[in-house]
Formats: sequence, C-alpha cells, structure tokens
Amino acid sequence: MIKVGIVGGTGYTGAELLRLLALHGSVHVEVLTSRQASGQRADAIFPHLRGYCDAVFESPEIERLAQCDAVFFATPHGTCMQMAPQLIDKGVRVIDLSADFRLKDREVFQRWYKQPHTAFDLLQEAVYGLPEADRFGIGAARLVACPGCYPTSVQLGLMPLLETSAIETSGIIADCKSGISGAGREAKVGSLFCETTDSFKPYGVAGHRHGPEIEQQLSVFADEPVKLTFVPHLVPMSRGILSTIYVRPKDPKADHQALFQKWYQGEPFVDILPAGTLPETRSVRGGNVCRIALQLAPDRETLIVMSVIDNLVKGASGQALQCFNLMFGFAESQGLDAPGLAP
Amino acid sequence: MIKVGIVGGTGYTGAELLRLLALHGSVHVEVLTSRQASGQRADAIFPHLRGYCDAVFESPEIERLAQCDAVFFATPHGTCMQMAPQLIDKGVRVIDLSADFRLKDREVFQRWYKQPHTAFDLLQEAVYGLPEADRFGIGAARLVACPGCYPTSVQLGLMPLLETSAIETSGIIADCKSGISGAGREAKVGSLFCETTDSFKPYGVAGHRHGPEIEQQLSVFADEPVKLTFVPHLVPMSRGILSTIYVRPKDPKADHQALFQKWYQGEPFVDILPAGTLPETRSVRGGNVCRIALQLAPDRETLIVMSVIDNLVKGASGQALQCFNLMFGFAESQGLDAPGLAP
Amino acid sequence: MIKVGIVGGTGYTGAELLRLLALHGSVHVEVLTSRQASGQRADAIFPHLRGYCDAVFESPEIERLAQCDAVFFATPHGTCMQMAPQLIDKGVRVIDLSADFRLKDREVFQRWYKQPHTAFDLLQEAVYGLPEADRFGIGAARLVACPGCYPTSVQLGLMPLLETSAIETSGIIADCKSGISGAGREAKVGSLFCETTDSFKPYGVAGHRHGPEIEQQLSVFADEPVKLTFVPHLVPMSRGILSTIYVRPKDPKADHQALFQKWYQGEPFVDILPAGTLPETRSVRGGNVCRIALQLAPDRETLIVMSVIDNLVKGASGQALQCFNLMFGFAESQGLDAPGLAP
Amino acid sequence: MIKVGIVGGTGYTGAELLRLLALHGSVHVEVLTSRQASGQRADAIFPHLRGYCDAVFESPEIERLAQCDAVFFATPHGTCMQMAPQLIDKGVRVIDLSADFRLKDREVFQRWYKQPHTAFDLLQEAVYGLPEADRFGIGAARLVACPGCYPTSVQLGLMPLLETSAIETSGIIADCKSGISGAGREAKVGSLFCETTDSFKPYGVAGHRHGPEIEQQLSVFADEPVKLTFVPHLVPMSRGILSTIYVRPKDPKADHQALFQKWYQGEPFVDILPAGTLPETRSVRGGNVCRIALQLAPDRETLIVMSVIDNLVKGASGQALQCFNLMFGFAESQGLDAPGLAP
Repeated sequence: MIKVGIVGGTGYTGAELLRLLALHGSVHVEVLTSRQASGQRADAIFPHLRGYCDAVFESPEIERLAQCDAVFFATPHGTCMQMAPQLIDKGVRVIDLSADFRLKDREVFQRWYKQPHTAFDLLQEAVYGLPEADRFGIGAARLVACPGCYPTSVQLGLMPLLETSAIETSGIIADCKSGISGAGREAKVGSLFCETTDSFKPYGVAGHRHGPEIEQQLSVFADEPVKLTFVPHLVPMSRGILSTIYVRPKDPKADHQALFQKWYQGEPFVDILPAGTLPETRSVRGGNVCRIALQLAPDRETLIVMSVIDNLVKGASGQALQCFNLMFGFAESQGLDAPGLAP
Repeated sequence: MIKVGIVGGTGYTGAELLRLLALHGSVHVEVLTSRQASGQRADAIFPHLRGYCDAVFESPEIERLAQCDAVFFATPHGTCMQMAPQLIDKGVRVIDLSADFRLKDREVFQRWYKQPHTAFDLLQEAVYGLPEADRFGIGAARLVACPGCYPTSVQLGLMPLLETSAIETSGIIADCKSGISGAGREAKVGSLFCETTDSFKPYGVAGHRHGPEIEQQLSVFADEPVKLTFVPHLVPMSRGILSTIYVRPKDPKADHQALFQKWYQGEPFVDILPAGTLPETRSVRGGNVCRIALQLAPDRETLIVMSVIDNLVKGASGQALQCFNLMFGFAESQGLDAPGLAP
Repeated sequence: MIKVGIVGGTGYTGAELLRLLALHGSVHVEVLTSRQASGQRADAIFPHLRGYCDAVFESPEIERLAQCDAVFFATPHGTCMQMAPQLIDKGVRVIDLSADFRLKDREVFQRWYKQPHTAFDLLQEAVYGLPEADRFGIGAARLVACPGCYPTSVQLGLMPLLETSAIETSGIIADCKSGISGAGREAKVGSLFCETTDSFKPYGVAGHRHGPEIEQQLSVFADEPVKLTFVPHLVPMSRGILSTIYVRPKDPKADHQALFQKWYQGEPFVDILPAGTLPETRSVRGGNVCRIALQLAPDRETLIVMSVIDNLVKGASGQALQCFNLMFGFAESQGLDAPGLAP
Repeated sequence: MIKVGIVGGTGYTGAELLRLLALHGSVHVEVLTSRQASGQRADAIFPHLRGYCDAVFESPEIERLAQCDAVFFATPHGTCMQMAPQLIDKGVRVIDLSADFRLKDREVFQRWYKQPHTAFDLLQEAVYGLPEADRFGIGAARLVACPGCYPTSVQLGLMPLLETSAIETSGIIADCKSGISGAGREAKVGSLFCETTDSFKPYGVAGHRHGPEIEQQLSVFADEPVKLTFVPHLVPMSRGILSTIYVRPKDPKADHQALFQKWYQGEPFVDILPAGTLPETRSVRGGNVCRIALQLAPDRETLIVMSVIDNLVKGASGQALQCFNLMFGFAESQGLDAPGLAP
C-alpha cells in the first residue's frame, strides 16, 4: 500500500481524487487536510463516498504529510509552492493539481496569478504532467505539475498537428466550453444554480490564466512560438469540457484522421473517434478518457479539431492519478479503468 | 466466464447493464439484441462504452439466446413472457427487468398492462428480485422478476417497519420523485428536454402501474393487506428516485433509527444515514446503494422515511446484476462495488 | 405615477419586482437600496433589465425612502421590523416580502427566527398579504406582510376545503417541492450549481420556518387549530413550487372539483385545472397565477390537491405587486397580466 | 383588430407566437392549424397560455386562412411554398418562419433541403425578414422570409463590420451554441432530456443548412462573396443562442465598439453592451433583444464578436411579429416590449 496525502480535500478535485483512489486498490489515504473542515469525516461532506472512505479532515501539517509516499495538492494556487519544498526535502513526491508549477516563466506566473513565485528552483525541476507528452519524465519526477483542464483538452487536440508541423502556428482559435465544476466548490454568486442554469456565456475573453499555459505547451510541441486565441465559455452542466479548435493545415488534403489514429495508437486514455463522428461531453463523464474528432470545414481550408474530457478526471484528478501510477510503477490505468456514466 | 444475453439493449437499462457488466470481470456478453439496431455496434449508440464493449446488436433469436447461461430482458412489458418459457426449457436462467413477472395476480396484471398474461405457470414460479427480501429464493431461481424502480425505493424504506408490525398498515403515503430516465429512451414528446427541464410535475396520480406492485409486496412484508397512496412526480434530472414516505408508527417513541440500523446491518447495498442527516439522489448516482433516513415529524405522530436510489442501478440494472451474482455464486457486489459519481 | 422604494434590491425577489414594475406603467422606482451594491446601476447586476430600469442602488436611508408612497422590503428577516415603524409614521405604506410580520405570535417568531420581535404593535396591525383571503384588508392596510412561497401554494390549495369544513383538520400532509431560487441569491455552497443540479433532496424535515406560518393561516381558514406535516424538497430548477397535499375529506364522494371552481370563480390569479389534468410548474413560470388540480386517490379516502406557483412571482414579488395594486386602487392585475414563459 | 392565422401551431415557434400575440392587443388569432391536434384547444397542449388564448386547432384550409389579413407559417420546410402562392393571390400577406423563402438560389435550396423549390416567382419576391437590415422592404412586402435563429445572431454581429468593410471577408469563424428548443418539438431520441442534459456537443460540423443562409446574407452586407466556417453546438438549456464570431479587422486599432454603438443607435432590439462586459443568453430569455459585445483578442489581431438572442423570440417568433408590426403599421415593438426573464 502506498500512503498518500491530499492537501485541500473539500473541493471538487479533492473529492474526485478520493473517489478514484477508492477504486485503486493499492493506495491508502493517510492524511487528508482542510483547515475549515478539520475534524469532520470526508464522507459527511461527500456522502457519495460513504462506505468507500474513512478519512477524517485534519489541519495541514508538514510532519503528518511527510509520513506519506506522495502528496496531492488540490488547493488554490499559492499553497503548493509553500509546502512542496519541505515535503520534497523529506523525500515525499508531490503531485500538484494547482497552477503553481505549470508556468515555467516566473514573470508570466506573477502576471497571471498576482503573486511572486517563491519556489523557483522547484519550478525549473517540475515536470508538466501530461502523460501523453512526457510519460517518462513524469515517471521519474519528484514534482509533477498537473495541467489545467482547458490546457489538457487543447493540447491533446493539437499535439499531433504541431509535433508534425502539419498546421500554421498562427491564427489558431480554441473556442472552449466547460461545465461549472471548473469554477470550484467555493461559495460564489457566479456559480450559483440560478446564476448559471439555462444560460450560456463566455468569460475571460480579454485574457484567461490558461491561455499562457496552453501557449507554453503548444510552443514546446511546435518547437517555435505558438499564439492562439482562447475563449472559454460556461455550460450549464456539472462536468465536461469541449474544445472546438480551428487551425489551418499546411496540406488540407492530408489525412489528418490517420495521423491522429497513428499518433495516439496504444494510448490508454485518448480515443480518436471514427471519421464523421462527433464527440459529446457526457461520453467521458466520470472517465479519464479524452475523445477527439476531426472535420475539415466546408471551405476545405480550415481543420476543426474537437476534443472532450471530464474536467474533473482527465482534466484534474484522473490525470493526477495517472501521473501517480507512472511515478509509483503501477499500470497507468489502475483505478481509472471504468467507463463514463451516461445518461 | 458466464455467457449472458441481453434482449432489448438500446434502452437505458440495457445500456446501464452493459456498463456494469464491463466492470464485472467474469461475464461475457454473448448475445445483445435489438430489432431496430441490428447490425450496429453497441458503442456506436452508446459512445461512453467505447473500449469497454465489443457487442453488436442482432435480432433476437431463441437459438442464439439459448447459448447463454443467463438472459436479461431489458424490454418493454410483453416480450419476456413470450420468450422466457422457451429459454427456461432449454436451461437458460432468466432475469427480467420488465414488469412481466412482478405481479402475482394475473387479473391485476391484465388490468394494468392491458394484455393477458401468457405464461401463468412461470408467473407462479418467478421469484421477485429484491435481494434484501429474498436472497436465497433469488439464488435458486430459474426466473427472477426484478422490481420496478419506485417499488424498490418504497419497499426498502418500509420493510423493517412492516415486518416488525411497527406501523399502521393503512393511510401510508408514498410521495415519490423520479428522474426522467425512468421514462425510457423512446422518442416521446413528453420526455423531450424542453418539455421537462426547469419544471416539476406529478403524473399518474389517478393510478400508476407501480402502485399494485408496491401494495403486493408490502402486504407480503406485513402479512396482511396494505393500502397506500402512491403519487409519482417527474424531476428535471437524469437519474435518481427519492421517496418520501409518511407512516403512523404504533409507538412514536420507539427507536426506529435503531430498528433500521439493525435490520439492514451487513446489507451491502442499504445505507442507513445517521440520525439528523437527509439523503440526496446524487449521492447514489451510478451506484447500487439505497440510502435511507428517518425523521419523526413535528406532530410526533407521523414518521417520515426518505429513501434514495439510482433508478437505473438499484432500481433496475444494478439490482438485476445483484440477482445474477446470487444466482451464479459470485460475491453479491461483484461489478457493483464503485461509489456514486458526484457532482 | 406612484413613487416606490425597494429596500434590498440585489436578491431575486428584488430583481423580479423590478421586472414586474417595468411592466406596470403607473409606478416609478424612486429609491432602490443595497448596502453592498451602492452606486451601481441595477441593470449592471441584472442585465436582462437593460433598457427597462434606470435605477441606481443607494444605501438605505429613511429620509430618502420617506419620499416614496410605498416601500417594498425584499430583505432578509430583521430589516423591515426596524425600518417600517419610522416609514409608517411618515405616511409611507409598507409591503414586506420578508418574514417579519407574517407570524402573529411573537414567541413563535422568536423561536423560528432566533431574534426578538421589535415592532410588536405593527405586528398586530399588519395584514397578511394573500389577496384571495383578504382582499379588502390588504387594500386598506398600512403594512402588508406578504406570505412565504410555500405558504401561498399550500393555502390556496386548502382554503376552500378548510373554509367549508370539508376535510379533517388533522393528519394533513404537504409534500412541497421548490426550485432553487427559493434559497436566495446569497453565495452559499449549498446553492451552487454543482451541489444542486441533477439531484433532488428534502430539507428542513425536522422543522421549517414556513411550517408555523402555514398552520397559523390554515387555522384561520378552519377556525380551529390545524396541524400539518410539511416537508420541503429542493428541485434542480430555478423557479417554481409544486405542493402535493394529502387530506382526508369528510365526504369522499363530494364534488370537490366543483367546490374549487366555484370558490375561485372570478379570481384573476387562481386557475382550477379541468378534472383529470395535472399541473406543472413551467406553466406558471414568470406568471402570477396559481394552478390547482384535485384527484381522489385510488383508496377513495384521500384527496390529493396539487398546486403550482412561481415562487418568485405569486410566491413573492408578483403577490407583493398584487397587494400594491389593491392598496393604491389599480386594477389587481396591472403589471401582472402576462402569461408564463414555456418552454 | 388584425386577423391572423398560424399554420403549424403545435411547435415551439407556434406556441411562442401565441404567447407574444397575447401581449399585442391589436391582433386576433382567427385560424390556428395543426393536422394532428385538430379539434384540441391550444391551451390544452400549452397550459401556460390558459386564460390568454381561446384558439382551437383546425386542419389547414386555404379558404379559412384566406379570411385572415396575415398568415404565419410555423411549419417544417416545404409547407409554406405550397400554400403561400394561393394565399397571396387572395390578398393575404404571409410571414414564413420556415426556411422555404430564405435562400435566393433555388439550387442551393434544393441541395440543402432535399426538394425542389415549387414557388420560384415568390422566392424572388420574398423579402428577407431582418428588420435591422431592411426595415422598409419588410414593411412593403407581401411575403416575408424570417431568418433562421443562427443567421440572425451572426448577421447582427457582423453587419456593421461588413457594411463598413472593416474586416477581412475570408477566414471568418462563427462558433455558435444553441439551446435545445432549436431542434423543435418533434419526438426525436436526440432531443430527449436524458440525451442532452449535462452534456455539450457540436453537430452539423460537416455542413449545416444555416451555413449557406448566413453566407448569402453576409455577402449582401459586404457586397462581395463572404465565406465563413460555421459550427453549431447544442447547449443543455431550453432557449438561447450565443455566437462567438472570430474576424480579422483591417485596422485592429479602430474603435469597433463605437462603430457598433453608432450603427445600432435607435434600434429597439439591438443592445450593444458596454466595453468590457460580456453577454449571457439568460439576459435575453423571452425577450426580443439581441445583445452584442466586442473584445479584441490578446493577439491584437483577432476581433471577437459575441451576440446572444433567444432563438424562439428574436430568432423566430418575436422577429416574425416585429416584421408583422412593420407590415401593418404598428409600432415596431408592440407586443415585444417586455424584458427577459431571469433567473
């Protein structure tokens, strides 16, 4: 049994991690922290976990967390970069679901997250946790920075095209739509049922934190700077992201469908849909898979890539567990091998 | 590997059964039938099952189904009673998710289902498939009649009270609320998104088919005729049933909470909530558990029992699989041992 | 033009009042208050009102409010009872949408609202604002206490039966279901989209503030103490309340349908549905009407009354405007004469 | 009183037209047709209209319809082009909400609607019913072809830019999202609650009927051929369309906000949001307004135009009534002058 800790377990990614770990079989949640819920059972707050989780929230203490083999941070940004250095010093491997170690440029971090980065050395060391891009790096890492939810869906949709230089690197548009769990479990007026149901809206159009993260990673794939226009929207549903990505292929007649099928062959969590088929978010609800479809637009010049993930699973906790499995030598899909739930 | 067939696999209970069987590990779906979808892959219709199910729909044929060890009927009523006799003759065990073998009185059946019962002998033999009430009967049965979704939630909420004669058997009110998947996957105007979303309504108030089924079973528990007022309502959600049941305890001061805890101790799929806690349907979404809470009303004379299930799981396909496990000697929870999905 | 003030205009009832007043034609919103939003335009917070409302939030000041002919309180409880005495002294008529003046017994108020009542004289004077019960009292009132949303739906469903002594006054059960706007626009975890969507639950089963209010009013109708079991539930929809009420008629064969049709004949906002028809909340979405249906249960002993309202309209702001119309001599339906919005 | 007929009144646009006409005051619905619902009252099918509409469905007959001053067609395509010629011959003015007279090129019509156009003369005469583009043409027309819902939102978002040659006419991307009422009230599996709720998906990516309609009209604005990539998506909500439109301005530093404000100044139903504000569909729910916002993307080269409408109102029945008002000399906003309903 691997002993793990979870810092910040009262949010949706924390709860989802508890659910997935309950299915893993080789992991024990040794420490579960929350300042506010300290002393409460996790399943009192998340009754769907009754019978699957005995953990009790406690205040975060380095000493307690240091007893774990791995610690997940399911916290707002700013927490992990304060605690990770001490934990790593003590030999604990850290998997960060927050934004603290995603952006390699500390100035970009400071601009978007409104605080200086206080763990610059670790920032350089941290491995970006997208297994489909760097399986071996993740396996060997002491600190993994799990991608954001939007960045996961966009990267998986563009990686084959950028890695093979099949598209123009300018003028890319990612029109993304997310369920409301992406806004977290904080009490905010904007996330109320009555403020979001039966409505649809864009947000962050002038600039969103995931924009620079996506550009950073796409530039790695392309080996040159990639600029994209990224517009997130809010969908009245709990879970799910669909990214509709518009790119200009260098050769519109190329068989991009075949490229994707070959590129992702053998990947346990990327499913290229048959040509002519379109994805829907509910097909991945609760599952760790990313489903991708391609369609050349009627103008024969624009390629449309559509990718769906569950933002709480492949976009957060499932991906974190996938990274954990790589780091600790488990089968990559252990605990993640269940289909989505539909309807 | 046990070989199973599913007749009528294009509805929600059929799809849910495929999802649960994918998690079972000891079952192979040998035959999957649908007249309309014959020739199509199941995962083309249910893309959340891509990677988990290779089955292809075929037209229902007795010869093919007879190659199975067990056949599930996820059909409208009227189909199973035509095919079950032949299958049972050939040694196939039958698990019927439809209404054909639930009502023991053929006249009651005919009145509510508008057709004569054509398999009266089997009707007498059929075992009602509520494991918490008749675990051993189910295990030995050739034909199991799985309970309806409303009846499951009401029976589990009243069984301890009726079996111990703790309440009056008249004046029981079951105010039940169901998600829309209970109406099935047929194309009906009344089940359209725009006809149901952001709205709430009762239906079948003058009489609903599940009423006589509930009364039949409650009368078995009470060993005397039980009459209840049953009003179903439609909730704008996919899955879930909550039954709010109002009864008059003979001794209002009795510790009904303790009664329920003791009665269901050790049951893998009934969870009595701590006193003062109330259930919500999402805590059982996708799971096979029934959660029950009790509260004495402020008048100190009325006991309120609240039970929640996922109508597609404990109210249909999960319960069918639970029965299957009992019939074939598997652990009762095999394939059913995952927590619900929330949010 | 009648000049009105609205205290507490950032909640859902305040916004709904602004919407309805925009349709009235003879009212000008002179003062609109909110401590938090002071200085902001109302239509910046409620963009659906752009073009219909020029009001700007200001901090609540008695002097400013005293310039109005009438002041609506759309505040949490505790505010109106502090400000109403001064306003009424200055000749302003007050319409309170909060709970401050609904309960006539100050001890009952204190028990349920956890604070002493500080305006006892006015409490005695206040007229309960259900026009169908006391049209003339409201018209003459200086202070109207608008009913709660659940109480409105239950009272309209029981008034004819209790006023004519047609039912037993004990053992009444009101199983009520409300949309989430009933919980207000405060930032609370329990009202988040992801905490409420695709789920259904009871709440306040051990006791809810609207229980004593309902009993108080039903006792007035019956002219004897009436006790009821009241269980509210939360429906994943914005607006709407459906109350399913179970009563025992003294003469089950009596024509209760005819009683209701006669009783409410000529009422502009009560619609008795044809026998055999059932109500749905969406039929009253945005409208001020209460729709009621009756059905004798299969046991021939229980009468089921089902009533639907829009909790923000007939259950709050529409009813307040209806009272206002009576108080200021307008046609009772002025500003309220639009059908509901469906789908 | 103007006498109107509505052909095909059992769909969502027919019902919405009945709701809006109930608010108009100067119109009487003389004939309401439906083959299937013949003999039924409209308010039996649409109970939100009880008290507002006495119309009874009848089978469509030219003689009956010829008694009207105007006839609205809220039918599937193919019906209006068969009946309109006879009605217009008899002096009836026709407002077509279907697709029959939108596409000026009969071959394009045949390609997308899979049937030959049988009223070519009228096709040439028909005036495209977007009042903001051709108010006077509509006023004088005998036959108005109301725009589709997507085309309305895209045209209003691009008209000022194309009319003033402010953007490149190639490479335009319209990523559009619609509520489910856009799919109509037909019983189709794909429109069921359980098939659409809590999910999001694109559809018609390879080509959608509204694509050529949008291109036709944008080309009129630009006075040169305009090509766009149009991708519709389905949002789990009843009503509303949001179009996110990506264009390349010729001068990115130009003040496009000012252009839009000036262009639409005085328009009763186009609302340009303040700079920095973003639209949401619920702000127009039930209202006839189109709200538009502009944002230059972080790349400073892409202009993002976001427009929202209620697809059943400004995208269908409201726009039809707006055209009717122009044709019969009413104030353009008569019957349309109510704010949207939120939440």
